[in-house]
Amino acid sequence: MNIEMIRAADARLEGHVRRTPLLSSPFLDEIAGRRVWIKPECLQHTGSFKFRGGWSAVSAMDPDLRAEGVLAFSSGNHAQGVALAAARHGVPAVIIMPSDAPQMKIANTRALGAEVVLYDRATEDRDAISARVLAERQLTLIKPFDDPFVIAGQGTCGLEIAKQAAAEGIGRADVLVCCGGGGFASGIALALEAEAPGLRVRPAEPEGFDDMARSLASGAIERNDRMSGSLCDAILTPQPGDLTFPILARLAGPGLAVSEDEALHAVALAFSRLKLVAEPGGAVALAAALFHAGEIEGDDVIVTISGGNVDADVFRMALDRFGG
Amino acid sequence: MNIEMIRAADARLEGHVRRTPLLSSPFLDEIAGRRVWIKPECLQHTGSFKFRGGWSAVSAMDPDLRAEGVLAFSSGNHAQGVALAAARHGVPAVIIMPSDAPQMKIANTRALGAEVVLYDRATEDRDAISARVLAERQLTLIKPFDDPFVIAGQGTCGLEIAKQAAAEGIGRADVLVCCGGGGFASGIALALEAEAPGLRVRPAEPEGFDDMARSLASGAIERNDRMSGSLCDAILTPQPGDLTFPILARLAGPGLAVSEDEALHAVALAFSRLKLVAEPGGAVALAAALFHAGEIEGDDVIVTISGGNVDADVFRMALDRFGG
Repeated sequence: MNIEMIRAADARLEGHVRRTPLLSSPFLDEIAGRRVWIKPECLQHTGSFKFRGGWSAVSAMDPDLRAEGVLAFSSGNHAQGVALAAARHGVPAVIIMPSDAPQMKIANTRALGAEVVLYDRATEDRDAISARVLAERQLTLIKPFDDPFVIAGQGTCGLEIAKQAAAEGIGRADVLVCCGGGGFASGIALALEAEAPGLRVRPAEPEGFDDMARSLASGAIERNDRMSGSLCDAILTPQPGDLTFPILARLAGPGLAVSEDEALHAVALAFSRLKLVAEPGGAVALAAALFHAGEIEGDDVIVTISGGNVDADVFRMALDRFGG
Repeated sequence: MNIEMIRAADARLEGHVRRTPLLSSPFLDEIAGRRVWIKPECLQHTGSFKFRGGWSAVSAMDPDLRAEGVLAFSSGNHAQGVALAAARHGVPAVIIMPSDAPQMKIANTRALGAEVVLYDRATEDRDAISARVLAERQLTLIKPFDDPFVIAGQGTCGLEIAKQAAAEGIGRADVLVCCGGGGFASGIALALEAEAPGLRVRPAEPEGFDDMARSLASGAIERNDRMSGSLCDAILTPQPGDLTFPILARLAGPGLAVSEDEALHAVALAFSRLKLVAEPGGAVALAAALFHAGEIEGDDVIVTISGGNVDADVFRMALDRFGG
């Protein structure tokens, strides 16, 4: 992995990816006690940054191999990103999804033209299903984060952040990145290392699923105890990736962990102050900036809102509890 | 009013206004039966396009006069736009607001540093209150739409639409603009006349408050029968403006009127498909594109989402009824 792979991905994404703006609100600045800059990847195609990695991977494939189709497993955002990238390349996509994934994510993945294979997380083994599908068909697996082309695609968001921060005169700041397996965080970290070395990535995770924060603290890959029981479905992963962890161990600052309530509160504030729809897992970085200000340094903080694919009932819950 | 005034406003707004993106969703395209392009001014500073006009007017004032302060009357979006523009120029703002305006809009206007004077729409006369305040203090009134500098500011959104449409290869299309007094629609119409003559503004209004559509049809200014009873508070005005109407009579296509249910449905679809928070009045153009497709021509349609300042209970209502 290096910056040239991210620049090459950026060239492949040009004209296909949405270049998201950098937003702010004086009301959020007041809560955080510093300037808060928001990179809203909920406005990306398919409603999350995952389209960047999906397009990067699919567009880099050998055309003959690509024509056979692609395979992904995902609780929803990677699924949609790969599904749309495959559809726009005119190739088939098979997506293996847990049956308890948010209904909107399953429905959207199907509507984007993918063949969805559901499995029961409690009783079925995802890897066995994946192996069976791969034995039957010549599909190429696109991993959700531990793939150089996927990391390079996510890193294009970091190139944009570097440019936008420079335009706002921000030389030094923590960049809080919603973190599951670390593909988004590691891609952004590599981009910032090259283009904005005063900006430092800090992964943000839900409490109880802070495998990356603990891994960064201990210097070795640590696992989560469980894989369910959080509304932050988008960023629940068993452990950091073999590719992503060394990048973040070298480049990232300490991780931040927020409570479920803090994530929901951030969803409500994104509604009222930014006019953005964030999903809980996509709001953990904003929650960290707003409610863990003492763990952050500097006059500015940059946060990603990584996705907005939230079912209406969860969104209503956030408004009921924190929407005034 | 001419294009040079809009270009001059654009120069004054540079570095202060947010240049909003042009968004789309395959799901909305499918509903509308054509490509739908969304200009999300809910992402503008203060959550609506009104900041453009507010900044344009305040920044064009004589500095000595400006230092005395500005006055506006508004149900909320113009209030916030003028309040923030005044605050960033370091001058006082007095805003006269109806006491039944959405709570969020009143609270935000105060939080942006303005002095808010509330009045009862049923029992008090706004113009009398305004005259009293102006008799006591040397404030300059900034009208919500019938002011050349305000129209010029709103027109900067049209300059952006012209550029963005060209980049997407859109040569001919209707541009549906949420319409109250017509400041936004007339400003955009003037900008498009100069920069993208294949794009035509069409005002969108709530049923029962379609004074602009009726005025365009009859060729003379027509009034609304009433001024309340709609969730589309942002765009309820008694009649088209003396400055705005002639511009639209010359440049705009027929108006479109949508039901309250259609506006709420569009709010729910902006939530699920665009990850945007739209207020009902800000969603009437999107509603027209989605649910009045037979009244529109061409392969593409461009719609403004003019604002996102909606109270949580109204937003919940939209999700309850149309959010799945």
